Amino acid sequence: MIKLRKHLVPVLSAILLGASGLAHAQSDPLPSWNETAPKQAIIAFVDKVTKTGSPDFVPMEDRIATFDNDGTLWIEQPMYVQLAFALDRVKALAPQHPEWKTKQPFKAVLDGDMKTLVASGEHGLVELLMATHAGMTVDQFQQVVTDWLATARDPKFHQPYTDCIYQPMVELLAYLRANGFKTYIVSGGGVEFMRPWVQKAYGIPPEQVIGSSIKTKFEVVNGKPDLVRLPEINFVDDGPGKPVGINQYIGHRPIAAFGNSDGDLQMLEWTAAGAGARFMLLVHHTDGVREYAYDRKSAFGKLDKALDEARPKGWTVVNMKDDWKTIFAFQ
Amino acid sequence: MIKLRKHLVPVLSAILLGASGLAHAQSDPLPSWNETAPKQAIIAFVDKVTKTGSPDFVPMEDRIATFDNDGTLWIEQPMYVQLAFALDRVKALAPQHPEWKTKQPFKAVLDGDMKTLVASGEHGLVELLMATHAGMTVDQFQQVVTDWLATARDPKFHQPYTDCIYQPMVELLAYLRANGFKTYIVSGGGVEFMRPWVQKAYGIPPEQVIGSSIKTKFEVVNGKPDLVRLPEINFVDDGPGKPVGINQYIGHRPIAAFGNSDGDLQMLEWTAAGAGARFMLLVHHTDGVREYAYDRKSAFGKLDKALDEARPKGWTVVNMKDDWKTIFAFQ
Repeated sequence: MIKLRKHLVPVLSAILLGASGLAHAQSDPLPSWNETAPKQAIIAFVDKVTKTGSPDFVPMEDRIATFDNDGTLWIEQPMYVQLAFALDRVKALAPQHPEWKTKQPFKAVLDGDMKTLVASGEHGLVELLMATHAGMTVDQFQQVVTDWLATARDPKFHQPYTDCIYQPMVELLAYLRANGFKTYIVSGGGVEFMRPWVQKAYGIPPEQVIGSSIKTKFEVVNGKPDLVRLPEINFVDDGPGKPVGINQYIGHRPIAAFGNSDGDLQMLEWTAAGAGARFMLLVHHTDGVREYAYDRKSAFGKLDKALDEARPKGWTVVNMKDDWKTIFAFQ
Repeated sequence: MIKLRKHLVPVLSAILLGASGLAHAQSDPLPSWNETAPKQAIIAFVDKVTKTGSPDFVPMEDRIATFDNDGTLWIEQPMYVQLAFALDRVKALAPQHPEWKTKQPFKAVLDGDMKTLVASGEHGLVELLMATHAGMTVDQFQQVVTDWLATARDPKFHQPYTDCIYQPMVELLAYLRANGFKTYIVSGGGVEFMRPWVQKAYGIPPEQVIGSSIKTKFEVVNGKPDLVRLPEINFVDDGPGKPVGINQYIGHRPIAAFGNSDGDLQMLEWTAAGAGARFMLLVHHTDGVREYAYDRKSAFGKLDKALDEARPKGWTVVNMKDDWKTIFAFQ
């Protein structure tokens, strides 16, 4: 308790500074967060691991923070953005594939028959992904993603998907980096689907993105060495795959991890199990007006087991409705 | 030719500075390199990609340089260091494996029968690697590597392996970083075998190491979440696997690549094929006195096809005997 009280000083200072008017508010690193427990917990954690002489001090090279993407940094309803991309790609590529008119799951996509599509299950989904994500070079795929994002709009807010990112989390990423953290994305989504836009959206460079991937092959085509994307799963960066992916790419256990679904559970558990100060946070989608409200029964971003674990383990849970002053910058 | 002449100015300046006595010599970023063509080519390249307004200017986020490890940054004779490690581990673990006394390739290792060991081929090698590199947590393996490196000595110089690193390359790494480059290791060797010591040896953090790997699995053992190493190949980061690994981990094509063997050929080809200024370098082991002399017929670090490609393609080839003033800091 003595230790806790010690850390209340900077927390209280931060709150007081934040409340003391516009001049001071500009120095608030997290202006889109309400002055509730999650913001206080974040600032207290950063303070104790960065202050020289603190018993919880962590050297800069160990300040690794990992963030899920879908539902943690950007929107994931009414479906994962990458799935919306795949469906649009099926429609765009359909003229070159007359057989799709009668072949599932492509027929379901072209007919807008979501029920049949969902019924095609994981097998159907993988078929869709391979047909739309493979068979081109790495550079070509990045261009396709960039072009799609330039015109696609989310169905609720009618905004570019890259604007449907959570402003409080963008501030949190910048705040951590300003305090010597290296921020990583660790997503079940495709790594090549994220790399073209995450630098601009989140300030995270492509080499700090860990995600699911398909295999690629080195080929010399017309004398030009290139990498071709193959229709074969390489790595699934979800659930227990997240700690595996983090270790494979970074070789460090993070000291802070941020997620919003059961797919992030093992990443948070593994982060929590390391020695020294740790910070684990779940974003709970509770705002059906400004965003979406969903958790235990959602088809995308189901939050059930992880929510049950969070409280007894002392993980921070963000109640979006109460804890976030702003959700999207465009609102 | 006009372009070339323009870049001679800084090169000549650097040479003159380097030759003008001790006070200036201290500002020479590459003091272990002789004033021969490779050093001049390196400095000219760094100068043209970093100078604002240069037609070849490369923004800092694209200044990615990738380095092979065995034979490029440290010694690889009379055998890969990691193989020496595996052989020592077989001897250390033998008391727990009485069956190894009669089972190949373990028997060959215990008998010191290199001929039979080599005859066991790739299959035998993989068996050795799995028996010595799997079946423990990631943290435990890193400790085993660290402990081994603390006492193992190379057979020619009787030095710790982590001192058998090429001083000119250590200077080159630091010089590139001082000019805004991000330096990566891209090795056929095991990523977890390198991570424990590369920060201290080369100034490269664990997250900037790409290498071969075995699979790991997330497991909760006695309530503690951990990663266990499995006896199953995950990725072979050699030959055409190097561009694949670079793209998977970094998502950027490097602008400079450094190797010493045919296993680096595709990495150099892929690097060379990108747009804008490029730099490719091969270390040719030509000094049998201060190190080893080997190339086209070597069992480790064979340099044959890549050497033939280097000249017509204008890649820089380091002749260790002539181009390196110092090879090891201990000499």
